[in-house]
Amino acid sequence: MTILPRGREHRAPDHPIEPIFVDRWSPRAMSGEPLDEAELMRLFEAARWAPSTYNEQEWRFLYARRDTPHWPAFFALLMEANQAWCAKAAVLMVVLSHKVFTHNGKPNPVHTFDAGAAFENLALQGAAMGLVVHGMAGFDRSKARATLGVPDDYDVEAMVAVGHPGDPAELPSALQAREMPSGRKVVGEFIREGPFSFVN
Amino acid sequence: MTILPRGREHRAPDHPIEPIFVDRWSPRAMSGEPLDEAELMRLFEAARWAPSTYNEQEWRFLYARRDTPHWPAFFALLMEANQAWCAKAAVLMVVLSHKVFTHNGKPNPVHTFDAGAAFENLALQGAAMGLVVHGMAGFDRSKARATLGVPDDYDVEAMVAVGHPGDPAELPSALQAREMPSGRKVVGEFIREGPFSFVN
Repeated sequence: MTILPRGREHRAPDHPIEPIFVDRWSPRAMSGEPLDEAELMRLFEAARWAPSTYNEQEWRFLYARRDTPHWPAFFALLMEANQAWCAKAAVLMVVLSHKVFTHNGKPNPVHTFDAGAAFENLALQGAAMGLVVHGMAGFDRSKARATLGVPDDYDVEAMVAVGHPGDPAELPSALQAREMPSGRKVVGEFIREGPFSFVN
Repeated sequence: MTILPRGREHRAPDHPIEPIFVDRWSPRAMSGEPLDEAELMRLFEAARWAPSTYNEQEWRFLYARRDTPHWPAFFALLMEANQAWCAKAAVLMVVLSHKVFTHNGKPNPVHTFDAGAAFENLALQGAAMGLVVHGMAGFDRSKARATLGVPDDYDVEAMVAVGHPGDPAELPSALQAREMPSGRKVVGEFIREGPFSFVN
């Protein structure tokens, strides 16, 4: 497994876990190099094996490779702050989820949750391959639906930038300082035995 | 990494990926043995390192261990079909997500998606430890909110059964036949380069 270069001090797990989880982070610096078709398929293959309710597999991925006719439409969906660094991505993805069950058309209560699980597999696989995989909430969902022809029974969930690691010094200066793996709350801040008793 | 016993023929990935993704599945047969506190913390530790928008870490986990005072309230949330096999779980969890950003109270568009990513880390870690981790959509969400005192600014996302693997022969007979890892659509069925063009 390729490890992206970074500091590790604030990334030491408090309980022993598989290294793949801590090795994954969300860099922004990318080189602009294209992604092989085979590399791209490995990312989607990981997403494929995520769990879903009734094995519905309700995630869908639309994507555009840089320097192809589809790219401008995907790139135009991003907030300006994300366009600044996504210009060097190799692939942009839009993650969708099917809101109803295929077998009976009834609402699927976990379509977004399951899509998040599939995305995480993709992100972990990308990190294991030494790629940048960065999920984004900052884009125009209505425009994505209109531009990409997403029907009403699908939700637009997130965008993802994928690429080869690049030189952080080429990022906009405000982003250079943020180009490091983030820390986390301790486990005790997000779990409770018994009923809800969180402060926020 | 411990591999749960199962057939593998229909679980061969079409593109090379880390084995952790295919090794994870969602068994139902559990032994009823308790989970060590240390094992439980390793599951939550994996969830901890999932990505989230602005590093919000908006997932929350409520849980009950079997043979503790909290167990009956959690168990009573499950649909009867899930109670049949969850009686042998060691831990039941309810996954929540905070719907608004902590720093400004504004809606977080990816709170459910991020919770799904955190759950997937937990599920993968559990599989790597040889545990059963089985996510469930089949439970009473309103009752969960009421019983566990979940405030309005949190969503109830999913439940999770966790335990040690058990003997499939002890499952209700209808579930014994389903006690094997499921296959998946091929990647080409859930990806498109460019706009939406899925049939369903």
